[in-house]
Amino acid sequence: MTQPGEYDASMRHALSLAAHGPVTGGNPQVGCVLVDDAGRIVAEGWHRGAGTPHAEIDALSKVEDATGLTAVVTLEPCNHTGRTGPCSVALLEAGVARVVYAVSDPGAHSSGGASTLRAAGIPVEGGVLAAEVEEFIEPWLTAARLGRPWVTVKWASSLDGRAAAADGTSQWITGTAARQRVHEQRAQSDAILVGTGTVLADDPSLTARGDGGELLAHQPVPVVVGERDVPAGAKLRSHPAGLIETHSRDLSLVLEGLFGRGIRRVFVEGGPALASAVIEAGLVDEYLVYLAPTLLGGARTAVGDIGVGTIGDQRRLRITAVETLGEDILITARPRRVSTPEGN
Amino acid sequence: MTQPGEYDASMRHALSLAAHGPVTGGNPQVGCVLVDDAGRIVAEGWHRGAGTPHAEIDALSKVEDATGLTAVVTLEPCNHTGRTGPCSVALLEAGVARVVYAVSDPGAHSSGGASTLRAAGIPVEGGVLAAEVEEFIEPWLTAARLGRPWVTVKWASSLDGRAAAADGTSQWITGTAARQRVHEQRAQSDAILVGTGTVLADDPSLTARGDGGELLAHQPVPVVVGERDVPAGAKLRSHPAGLIETHSRDLSLVLEGLFGRGIRRVFVEGGPALASAVIEAGLVDEYLVYLAPTLLGGARTAVGDIGVGTIGDQRRLRITAVETLGEDILITARPRRVSTPEGN
Ligand SMILES: NC(=O)c1ccc[n+]([C@@H]2O[C@H](COP(=O)([O-])OP(=O)(O)OC[C@H]3O[C@@H](n4cnc5c(N)ncnc54)[C@H](OP(=O)(O)O)[C@@H]3O)[C@@H](O)[C@H]2O)c1
Ligand SMILES: NC(=O)c1ccc[n+]([C@@H]2O[C@H](COP(=O)([O-])OP(=O)(O)OC[C@H]3O[C@@H](n4cnc5c(N)ncnc54)[C@H](OP(=O)(O)O)[C@@H]3O)[C@@H](O)[C@H]2O)c1
Repeated sequence: MTQPGEYDASMRHALSLAAHGPVTGGNPQVGCVLVDDAGRIVAEGWHRGAGTPHAEIDALSKVEDATGLTAVVTLEPCNHTGRTGPCSVALLEAGVARVVYAVSDPGAHSSGGASTLRAAGIPVEGGVLAAEVEEFIEPWLTAARLGRPWVTVKWASSLDGRAAAADGTSQWITGTAARQRVHEQRAQSDAILVGTGTVLADDPSLTARGDGGELLAHQPVPVVVGERDVPAGAKLRSHPAGLIETHSRDLSLVLEGLFGRGIRRVFVEGGPALASAVIEAGLVDEYLVYLAPTLLGGARTAVGDIGVGTIGDQRRLRITAVETLGEDILITARPRRVSTPEGN
Repeated sequence: MTQPGEYDASMRHALSLAAHGPVTGGNPQVGCVLVDDAGRIVAEGWHRGAGTPHAEIDALSKVEDATGLTAVVTLEPCNHTGRTGPCSVALLEAGVARVVYAVSDPGAHSSGGASTLRAAGIPVEGGVLAAEVEEFIEPWLTAARLGRPWVTVKWASSLDGRAAAADGTSQWITGTAARQRVHEQRAQSDAILVGTGTVLADDPSLTARGDGGELLAHQPVPVVVGERDVPAGAKLRSHPAGLIETHSRDLSLVLEGLFGRGIRRVFVEGGPALASAVIEAGLVDEYLVYLAPTLLGGARTAVGDIGVGTIGDQRRLRITAVETLGEDILITARPRRVSTPEGN
């Protein structure tokens, strides 16, 4: 038996290794360390994205002989043969003495690694630092559990909630720092969702660009939601990551389809009709609200009707961060699981 | 001649004394110290509100003999006989050797103290730490210069800018801490402005109350803006500070009238129509925007039309503070004097 807390430090190190891996690409960020009897870390590994070795394999490759070592890994070792072989088998063959992991693999095809190892007589312990690791890979876990991508909705508005002036003009609302952050957030997504309305009105390019306008290494694929066609000459047609046209307003169906293509994180960039529909459907996992220090008034709200008829139906959120970006404010929030208004 | 910076420390101390005085009541917060030849502070004084001695008189009352001392005072000594005599004359009669002040008195009736003192042969220096002191009494100075009260507008909304759900219900939007802050802000005002719409819809009491529901020491007078009457049985009719009914929608006229009654700080509590009208008229000096972590959507925006037809006409603000109050966020902002959008 292991002592309580015995592998916490190793697991925390494995978690820090996991963070080196990419957040996009459909696979989770996973880290692994091999630990000897004295508790010393003798090898490190992490997963660098689809098609590359899993964290366990990466760590095993760093030692000549893993016999008798303990493998400490943030996610339950996988049990299925994909582009790489099952990690459970690789760990067995390498002769590790024990396997410690944080979070169980929720995948229908990939789970079962712990059972395989135990069946072969290897002691396995799960749940070590589970809360920390779960929080770290929450988007991936949520996607795996729900069978749809993690959905982040972003909008930018004036302090009074407007996305544009009465005549529809909206330039110069948020500043440079906020816009740069949006590009970084795009680059951390597998897909960007926009409504046909925004495509037709703005002809956006929806690329993820750096400070100097250069394309960032990772480009999420743009997904256009709505029944209408993207015009022949639209900028989206030359997006470096291609283009997905859905010809549909059925958001659940669209998201399931994207999950089927390996997409785990989508970034909903609007416009108001699409954002409102995703909120109303209860499909939002994270909100990014950019507030510019300005007032616009009028009818062009950033969020339209979301089906809240009376105050009891309000969509309560939990704010997780408030940041200042140049002159703008970025509020990050998540839906509140239990709705307990605090009193007015 | 005095050395540059010679009286800065004394002035800073006078400013800290000024802060002991009340922000409400029509008179400015003023502090005064008497300093001897060695730069030692030998007496302190501050103004405790209308009908009580001015800061200079308060300080002079602390010494048996002020001959040869320097009076360091945050505001130019007054020159007129109100409920108290002119401070310029009192300083002369007390035999002070020199007068140093920060900010000139903008009042038509009260200014001229410096000239009176100089004419009597007393060296007078103005402008010491002027920027700090101006910022401290900015609301009072602004009121004196514009001939209307300093106007603070407050509203509470969801993150998407709504004040109520579709059916008008709005309980449980902001939490306890935010509501308590509003009561404190009321207590720092001379008057609370509301539209007739809010009075008729909500029958508010508009008192400034403490944590336990008890009335705070200072109660601002409620002012109802709009043509309609306040109903006979309205709670406002038993407000401890009385009630001002304007029977008018002319905001400039209403504000001038309040200035004429000695009101220097008004707190506009809404509703949406009044808030929007005050914003559109360019009469707002400070914005207090309470944002609750919730989404409501729909038509009941906290701010309505404010006359912004196109983005170039947006009302740019300068955010001066972002605070977390319980689960809510309070954004404090001021109008931007020069409109220089930073780029989108
Ligand atoms: N402030 C911001 O953050 C921001 C961001 C993006 C855009 N915008 C602005 O928003 C404006 C466009 O607004 P918009 O609301 O018309 O654009 P939108 O939300 O991009 O597109 C609306 C269209 O999306 C389609 N759609 C797809 N799924 C839907 C669903 N479940 N429910 C309803 N409609 C669905 C419908 O078109 P079909 O008929 O094709 O099905 C609908 O007309 C532009 O002016 C743009 O500049 C602002
Ligand atoms: N979220 C918040 O912070 C907040 C705060 C307060 C109230 N509320 C809600 O707001 C709702 C009432 O909304 P409301 O907009 O009708 O109320 P309102 O702004 O209090 O009153 C509107 C009325 O004010 C009068 N008025 C005075 N000066 C005006 C001007 N310059 N321009 C236009 N009208 C002027 C008009 O009535 P006359 O015909 O009498 O001239 C007008 O109908 C209530 O349900 C209340 O609960 C919300």
